[in-house]
Amino acid sequence: MAQKPSIPKGTRDFSPIEVSKRNYIVDTIKSKFQNFGFQPIETPSFENSATLMGKYGDEGDRLIFKILNSGDFLKKVDDTTYAEKDSLVMTPKISEKALRYDLTVPFARYVVQHQNEIDFPFKRYQIQPVWRADRPQKGRFREFYQCDADVVGSKSLFQEVDFIQLYDSVFTALNLDGTTIKMNNRKVLSGFAEVIGASDKLIDFTVALDKLDKIGEENVKEEMLTKGISEEAISKIQPIFNVSGSFSDKIETVKSILESSEIGMEGIKELEFIQEAISQLPLQTATLDLDITLARGLNYYTGAIFEVSAPEGVSMGSIGGGGRYDDLTGIFGLKDMSGVGISFGLDRIYLVLEELNKFPDTVSENTKVLFVNFGETEALYAMQAIKKLRANGVSAELYPDKKKMGKQFDYANKRNIPFVVVAGETEIANDLLALKSMKTGEQEDVSLQTLITKMS
Amino acid sequence: MAQKPSIPKGTRDFSPIEVSKRNYIVDTIKSKFQNFGFQPIETPSFENSATLMGKYGDEGDRLIFKILNSGDFLKKVDDTTYAEKDSLVMTPKISEKALRYDLTVPFARYVVQHQNEIDFPFKRYQIQPVWRADRPQKGRFREFYQCDADVVGSKSLFQEVDFIQLYDSVFTALNLDGTTIKMNNRKVLSGFAEVIGASDKLIDFTVALDKLDKIGEENVKEEMLTKGISEEAISKIQPIFNVSGSFSDKIETVKSILESSEIGMEGIKELEFIQEAISQLPLQTATLDLDITLARGLNYYTGAIFEVSAPEGVSMGSIGGGGRYDDLTGIFGLKDMSGVGISFGLDRIYLVLEELNKFPDTVSENTKVLFVNFGETEALYAMQAIKKLRANGVSAELYPDKKKMGKQFDYANKRNIPFVVVAGETEIANDLLALKSMKTGEQEDVSLQTLITKMS
Repeated sequence: MAQKPSIPKGTRDFSPIEVSKRNYIVDTIKSKFQNFGFQPIETPSFENSATLMGKYGDEGDRLIFKILNSGDFLKKVDDTTYAEKDSLVMTPKISEKALRYDLTVPFARYVVQHQNEIDFPFKRYQIQPVWRADRPQKGRFREFYQCDADVVGSKSLFQEVDFIQLYDSVFTALNLDGTTIKMNNRKVLSGFAEVIGASDKLIDFTVALDKLDKIGEENVKEEMLTKGISEEAISKIQPIFNVSGSFSDKIETVKSILESSEIGMEGIKELEFIQEAISQLPLQTATLDLDITLARGLNYYTGAIFEVSAPEGVSMGSIGGGGRYDDLTGIFGLKDMSGVGISFGLDRIYLVLEELNKFPDTVSENTKVLFVNFGETEALYAMQAIKKLRANGVSAELYPDKKKMGKQFDYANKRNIPFVVVAGETEIANDLLALKSMKTGEQEDVSLQTLITKMS
Repeated sequence: MAQKPSIPKGTRDFSPIEVSKRNYIVDTIKSKFQNFGFQPIETPSFENSATLMGKYGDEGDRLIFKILNSGDFLKKVDDTTYAEKDSLVMTPKISEKALRYDLTVPFARYVVQHQNEIDFPFKRYQIQPVWRADRPQKGRFREFYQCDADVVGSKSLFQEVDFIQLYDSVFTALNLDGTTIKMNNRKVLSGFAEVIGASDKLIDFTVALDKLDKIGEENVKEEMLTKGISEEAISKIQPIFNVSGSFSDKIETVKSILESSEIGMEGIKELEFIQEAISQLPLQTATLDLDITLARGLNYYTGAIFEVSAPEGVSMGSIGGGGRYDDLTGIFGLKDMSGVGISFGLDRIYLVLEELNKFPDTVSENTKVLFVNFGETEALYAMQAIKKLRANGVSAELYPDKKKMGKQFDYANKRNIPFVVVAGETEIANDLLALKSMKTGEQEDVSLQTLITKMS
């Protein structure tokens, strides 16, 4: 019996129009990556398990898709281990490879493995799918693309400046006005923790602070108290709960709190440098803002932290994020290799463009001219014209079978093909082609040369 | 201790220049696919195991990469089954998903699953990686891309004509003159078997005949004899061992053998129709040839069979192949859906272009202008110019750190960046930029506007 076809949950088929829209976004990002001097690399879909495991925490390890060893994989499992029937113990015995979970760890692995071929600073971009065994839900998939650009091998803050320019360029090119590039700095967060004498509770502190937008001041303070941060300590940084105004206003407020913290003031200095540079290199459609609650993967970032939000009015999480990490390649044995990078959220950008109706009309264009098929002789006549059109860069095709005209026009309509050419006995005798616009319904007899000119 | 990084055998990292070269090929193929009216789809990297298993024979099943179920996968295995410790029995219990093995079966699954949204005939292309647990060897990888174009829902031979045109267009665009598109027809092969009374031995017969090029006439006959085809039978088709001359000459020879076979003569008619159409739509750089030994996946194809060989002098297997299959979607319950398609061998085309030195020089271009970094003030001045260059489509970047000039020029050299701009105190004072060509060594002071004009 035939199987009823389906795909695994959390995965997707993409139809022609969906692929075209996704390609439009990816091609725009790619062209800006190149415009900014980034070079593409690609890494394998699966890595040795040792490369991935232990890099994303216990939860991450659990969410990594493991690939079963080929052949008689149980043969290598000794009987004692086998008798335990413990999935966790068994996994490394029967699986040595795993699907990549993100592009960052494979990139770090790439940099270390190829360090002698790379000219540092290395500006690379990478656009490839990643896989996570997460519970699928609206907007969360088990296979999705990441679009990353990173630089490793330079501590210059001009990188941060350039990444802000890059975000602005991409979203401007996507006709997505009004995005906000939120910036923070890990050192500022460390400064807060230091000032209140809670450096050992940095993570708890920032995890709570990160929720300010969502749960409000009182609940954030509540959480901090539960984590053992005293009321007195919290009161020392009271102003951060009401930071407002321009970028500079905010900086002044934060500065007043951090005066006594060396690391905190270093963070302030970095933020000021970047802000000053951006004011001299004004953004086109994005706004740079300071968000001192922003923490994003704190364990990871050591300096700047970025997050991009969609234009106001669109309810959507962040559509991009990134930051600086000072020791990414250390896990693979290459020390002192500072990196900074950003990422674009393809699926979310897609949803935002869809919601705001910002995909250009041209994105749904495919074939421009369909030739009606009246039989062998007419079809061959049509193919001559089609060949010439194609050679001139015009996408054209013959309806493959001799069917009723109505059916063939119907096909053109459904496929969104804007022009149909009819070439029957009469047209062939006069060396002409009848061109019909599917939009206006107008029809005219044209020569092949005229057709090419009109369609090009 | 840090891990020494490596990747799984049979997989590859692609460096910037390799990605650029691969993209050049893929973009060329993609643009011709679209030019011919094909539309892109994408399917998930992994499918339900039931979708893939049993579709590629026992060997295929073995070579499919299986994904281990997430969580406590052993919990679902009953103790009796577990006690067997049999990998084959265990596999379906602990793995429900598998990486796709080719693009054809997922395409068939897609067509059946989405049949109500698709406008037939459906012309789709798909360019995605596939995975096979094959023993890696020179030119054979465990992860590689397939580039496929297929039409389903039409029996018209104009499809075959169009695919030949498509091959010719792609290889012409890749500047790869002198390819040979070899064509055969399954019905002709069936005809041979019928004529010699060995219809039940069709596969044995064609597998042997397919080797004529490699092992020669005597050995082919030897193999046929071992398979139980009598000497008398073989003598009836003696002329096929010496088919030569033009396409038409060959057709005549084959026709004389097949006169008594209805199916054989049907194959001849199809070949003649296609040849006649191609003679009226002359190919640009490829040659269409008849190769009556060509069998390629015989169980699969029901009509035309294609295979493309690289220009003479390049020792390389086929760089493309395809054919017509009358019942692809039947395995998923959709009958009478004839399809025909072709595939491009990306890795082999890459090797051929490399060997013949046919990659255009532009393929290695990345950043066009590097700005030397003399410190903060100069860098900001440079960034203003870089921003304008980028806005004009010129790929430009700032060397991120203030390092010795020599080191910065060295970086430009290694990165293959053709121009360097020096803007120090003097240049800034005069509102100029010193432009140096890395090729000629020439240097001149230019205004920003002149620089933009020169670089665009």
